[in-house]
Amino acid sequence: MIIVMEASATRREIEAVCAKLVQEGFSVHLSEGVARTIIGVIGDRTRAMGLALEAMPGVEKAIPVLNPFKLVSREFRQENTIVSINGRVLGGNEVHLIAGPCSVESREQLLETAWAVKEAGATLLRGGAFKPRTSPYSFQGLEEAGLEILAEARERTGLPVVTEVVDPRFVSLVGSYADVLQIGARNMQNYFLLKEVAKVKKPVLLKRGPSATVEEWLMAAEYIMLGGNDQIILCERGIRTFETFTRNTLDLSAVPVVKRLSHLPVIVDPSHGTGKWWLVQPMAQAAIAAGADGLMVEVHPDPGEALSDGKQSLTPENFRNLVASVKEIAVAVGRRLSNTVAGEQLPK
Amino acid sequence: MIIVMEASATRREIEAVCAKLVQEGFSVHLSEGVARTIIGVIGDRTRAMGLALEAMPGVEKAIPVLNPFKLVSREFRQENTIVSINGRVLGGNEVHLIAGPCSVESREQLLETAWAVKEAGATLLRGGAFKPRTSPYSFQGLEEAGLEILAEARERTGLPVVTEVVDPRFVSLVGSYADVLQIGARNMQNYFLLKEVAKVKKPVLLKRGPSATVEEWLMAAEYIMLGGNDQIILCERGIRTFETFTRNTLDLSAVPVVKRLSHLPVIVDPSHGTGKWWLVQPMAQAAIAAGADGLMVEVHPDPGEALSDGKQSLTPENFRNLVASVKEIAVAVGRRLSNTVAGEQLPK
Amino acid sequence: MIIVMEASATRREIEAVCAKLVQEGFSVHLSEGVARTIIGVIGDRTRAMGLALEAMPGVEKAIPVLNPFKLVSREFRQENTIVSINGRVLGGNEVHLIAGPCSVESREQLLETAWAVKEAGATLLRGGAFKPRTSPYSFQGLEEAGLEILAEARERTGLPVVTEVVDPRFVSLVGSYADVLQIGARNMQNYFLLKEVAKVKKPVLLKRGPSATVEEWLMAAEYIMLGGNDQIILCERGIRTFETFTRNTLDLSAVPVVKRLSHLPVIVDPSHGTGKWWLVQPMAQAAIAAGADGLMVEVHPDPGEALSDGKQSLTPENFRNLVASVKEIAVAVGRRLSNTVAGEQLPK
Amino acid sequence: MIIVMEASATRREIEAVCAKLVQEGFSVHLSEGVARTIIGVIGDRTRAMGLALEAMPGVEKAIPVLNPFKLVSREFRQENTIVSINGRVLGGNEVHLIAGPCSVESREQLLETAWAVKEAGATLLRGGAFKPRTSPYSFQGLEEAGLEILAEARERTGLPVVTEVVDPRFVSLVGSYADVLQIGARNMQNYFLLKEVAKVKKPVLLKRGPSATVEEWLMAAEYIMLGGNDQIILCERGIRTFETFTRNTLDLSAVPVVKRLSHLPVIVDPSHGTGKWWLVQPMAQAAIAAGADGLMVEVHPDPGEALSDGKQSLTPENFRNLVASVKEIAVAVGRRLSNTVAGEQLPK
Repeated sequence: MIIVMEASATRREIEAVCAKLVQEGFSVHLSEGVARTIIGVIGDRTRAMGLALEAMPGVEKAIPVLNPFKLVSREFRQENTIVSINGRVLGGNEVHLIAGPCSVESREQLLETAWAVKEAGATLLRGGAFKPRTSPYSFQGLEEAGLEILAEARERTGLPVVTEVVDPRFVSLVGSYADVLQIGARNMQNYFLLKEVAKVKKPVLLKRGPSATVEEWLMAAEYIMLGGNDQIILCERGIRTFETFTRNTLDLSAVPVVKRLSHLPVIVDPSHGTGKWWLVQPMAQAAIAAGADGLMVEVHPDPGEALSDGKQSLTPENFRNLVASVKEIAVAVGRRLSNTVAGEQLPK
Repeated sequence: MIIVMEASATRREIEAVCAKLVQEGFSVHLSEGVARTIIGVIGDRTRAMGLALEAMPGVEKAIPVLNPFKLVSREFRQENTIVSINGRVLGGNEVHLIAGPCSVESREQLLETAWAVKEAGATLLRGGAFKPRTSPYSFQGLEEAGLEILAEARERTGLPVVTEVVDPRFVSLVGSYADVLQIGARNMQNYFLLKEVAKVKKPVLLKRGPSATVEEWLMAAEYIMLGGNDQIILCERGIRTFETFTRNTLDLSAVPVVKRLSHLPVIVDPSHGTGKWWLVQPMAQAAIAAGADGLMVEVHPDPGEALSDGKQSLTPENFRNLVASVKEIAVAVGRRLSNTVAGEQLPK
Repeated sequence: MIIVMEASATRREIEAVCAKLVQEGFSVHLSEGVARTIIGVIGDRTRAMGLALEAMPGVEKAIPVLNPFKLVSREFRQENTIVSINGRVLGGNEVHLIAGPCSVESREQLLETAWAVKEAGATLLRGGAFKPRTSPYSFQGLEEAGLEILAEARERTGLPVVTEVVDPRFVSLVGSYADVLQIGARNMQNYFLLKEVAKVKKPVLLKRGPSATVEEWLMAAEYIMLGGNDQIILCERGIRTFETFTRNTLDLSAVPVVKRLSHLPVIVDPSHGTGKWWLVQPMAQAAIAAGADGLMVEVHPDPGEALSDGKQSLTPENFRNLVASVKEIAVAVGRRLSNTVAGEQLPK
Repeated sequence: MIIVMEASATRREIEAVCAKLVQEGFSVHLSEGVARTIIGVIGDRTRAMGLALEAMPGVEKAIPVLNPFKLVSREFRQENTIVSINGRVLGGNEVHLIAGPCSVESREQLLETAWAVKEAGATLLRGGAFKPRTSPYSFQGLEEAGLEILAEARERTGLPVVTEVVDPRFVSLVGSYADVLQIGARNMQNYFLLKEVAKVKKPVLLKRGPSATVEEWLMAAEYIMLGGNDQIILCERGIRTFETFTRNTLDLSAVPVVKRLSHLPVIVDPSHGTGKWWLVQPMAQAAIAAGADGLMVEVHPDPGEALSDGKQSLTPENFRNLVASVKEIAVAVGRRLSNTVAGEQLPK
């Protein structure tokens, strides 16, 4: 960390800052420039940033030099983390497609979708049972009944299940049904929930918050990894900007940024990232071209009848088209779609 | 709601949309313009928006006409809601000052601050016991021990206590100590937490999320009011923008906007809203000039030693200066600072 | 356009709005809902939005139904516009690569770069002679001397030249050297400059402003097309958001959005869009996968010595790698890189 | 400036960076921490930032330590700059009100408004003759005829005139009529225009760009001051954020921030800053409470008939109410409204 003193800082003020740092166990490195005195702080960044140095007289600002995350950083672990999901591996050379409806609405709707996405090439099934909705008047999800339907779909299709957990009280319940626990965008900084999912021996899919920087997103992952769980899949799903034509602004540059800063795999959700079904395929293609390890796509047998997010959901037919085009892109970047379940023979 | 059909929409597509609406119990009103057919939908907006009409063939967009919130709207209740906090009333002509440290760090620190802010003119005491921190390596709060210290400070100074609840599991615990339950900015859309605080018979202070529109903020309040609790204080604390000089961009226009759209009282937190102690006083003045019903300000006996948010904390002396200047502004807008506790004689 | 009246609007206020509309030549369509009266306005949107209806008593809001742009819209022209640049065509099936240094710094620097990018596969040469710089202390460009160097590079390499015009006074000067006139992001809403370039018989490359919506961007293009010039290439180059790790947030969804709303071709600038050279290749790949008609990339023979934008510039070697990977992506989406100049024999 | 080397940077890379800096005339200061080597650069920041050090191998990032602006900084000039406008002074203890219509529409409209705002307490008259409009189909201003009407209004009412200049070619024309040259928000980074107005011996009112940081805004002012003109009035008018209820988000914290960083006066435009007439008065009050040196407010005799910005324009009556309330706030913060013209007797 670097402390920049004000131009008008007195000798006494400079000394007070240095004294405090030394007392806290840091080494200091004084550099007197033409216009400013600068204090280099050598030691643990996290602890240094915890000191309220900017509140001390004469201090203009404290500038961090190192990234605040440790365990999730590429420096901590050089090789890519591979996440294991019921025998499937995400984070290696193969690209995974997670597909399914926004919400589990009924047994029929989910099973129909699950078979359709599996046949099209999806390797994991998504579906929401507990739904965080902006309006209290909107459909709130089937809750535990939805989890049961998801479990049945897994048994029948063989597709592992990804579903959201929204409340620390439900972590063990959701964990008893799901193969991957999803933390939704609006809960990315719900640290008490993060601490709970860290304790579960299941992979966690951590969505980026709509106003979270990449650094804050990785800090949320740090909570989970510090809690003992390194099976984390990051998911870019768009950030909130001034542009309102799309529901969010899908920040695909986050994919190569995360790849450089961290060893964790990263996937993209072009459904929430755009909010319009006709944008899902081009942005899915772009996501894979940018290096994403997978996609998470909303598919509904009849989007016009969906109880949530219909306008961003693909029909099964559109999803098949997406898979075909994404397959080509994957090859173009030297990867291939996972077909873990392709050869399996499961009763319909 | 208005449905705008695409220029290329067929007669059959238009009829399908109308038929669906009629089947769902809405009246429709067809208007054929030069370039587009427009379908006016008469009936409950909330239900209409729940239909995935934009996923139907030929539909360009669905435009809501009414606000999505009901109970918290000014149309539902004309007069201002008055929130009662242990005999103090917020939302009327008097302006309240909530002050105290970001975190409860120790008994001494909190009691010293509590007495100082009370003597300066604060009418409520703030202090965090459970802290949502961006970094898992930062101080996470004293938790229940902090609540006990807050309760002791209330008994000694007579100041009601505002403290944050971060997890549905702790609502009854925090509720047993606090006079006002605070929902932090990052939990504004933690709907399961909102449903829990709605059940408690205590006022709720609901901070605006860093990327929440005013409409989404009021929808979060709608969850609480629909759950049976109308004792809600809204708190503007800055939104996230591209400007990084300040920690957030304090959106003071939200104050008169909320006053027009809703009957709920609204206060401002210039500490989080700016992130710099020297900006707190001018923005506190501006907040009251814009019509805020109160302020929430971080005060620490020694900001340079604070375990969190030191650089945005005022010293007790700076807080006294703030109170003096805010008092003048309140008078200029025809209001006055609350002095509910001024005449009380309480043992130190 | 739809006029939503306030719940409290009186009969007289509703009639006044209708009377004004009728007087201005519009048809009105009154719809009295449960909570609001809504007035449908039939006629030219542009003129209707020009009326200050929201300033009339009783009006809550005026909601546009149609897009505000006409000539640049897909409805006005169904087929894609093809832009001709000295015999090359942009906007068809072939993907173009525009490459070169941020600034023309010297004859040697530009010629070296021009040959390098041509050999790698670029079909157009970029280079700035007039530079809009945030700091008055930064290198401001070689101005006319730079234009002469660009012209020489074109003669030698055969690559048409794209360069920025920043001031209406220089339009004819820059137009006498350049093959494509670039309007920079910060001038996207410099309407007097747009009107001048509309008069020139040269293609215009119109960058999206850092805080412009897609709609505003298309409105800027509308100025040029209304002025008589339909040879417009749109260029997405990132928008300003709260994320500071990247220089801008590259909004790749703008590519398919523009393709749907407009007939104009759209390219992507991943150099300004990210601000970091190591992000340029993955985002270039993603841009083509999203459907872009071309790329604009900064290349410098020695980025560490560049007078501007060195950190986002590729070396010639990195540019060759980019071309190789982008070529694969183009094929994967059913297109191919333009090789207009590949077979030409030009003296070095 | 501080150069942070990558963890993997080699000795040779570190030496190359140091060598380059020394060669360019800087002193370097090497600090080897646990995780990183950091190079402190002593010398002129502007020149150091011009070096493309981040493009050199092994460099992770370059962090500026000093602000990039010089002449406009508080360090360069301790005391407040006072701007003189035809005998009126702005930037001292008195608060100025600039009022008038968005556009000059006719002689009658402007004269009526000018008298009305003067009688209410305005000390300067605003009105647009050249209008930068988002749509080419909107009213584009009366141009020179509008300037003549403004000049007549000045002669009759004695109010100095503020009007926008949008094009370098019109600077001398506009300068021959106006008392203050306004640079609109969308031209804040039109550096060639800034250089032209710097040469005129008239005060310049520089609006903040909708996506400009305070630092960039001050850099735009630096262009003008470096060009020889220090008579600059900064004007906050709202920034673009995700919130769409208001036209822009008025960033009032920019007022005390500018006051601390710079010696230039700063005023606020609550009309563009909110986009709704009923928000203008509360935000005008807040602006003065935050320390603004003045206000710029749109007033129209009949907002419902305005050719531009009707919905954010005040009627003369509402403007009188605004003046009355702002007067109280000014007193509360130890200032007073300017009444320079109050005692003058001018023929109607």
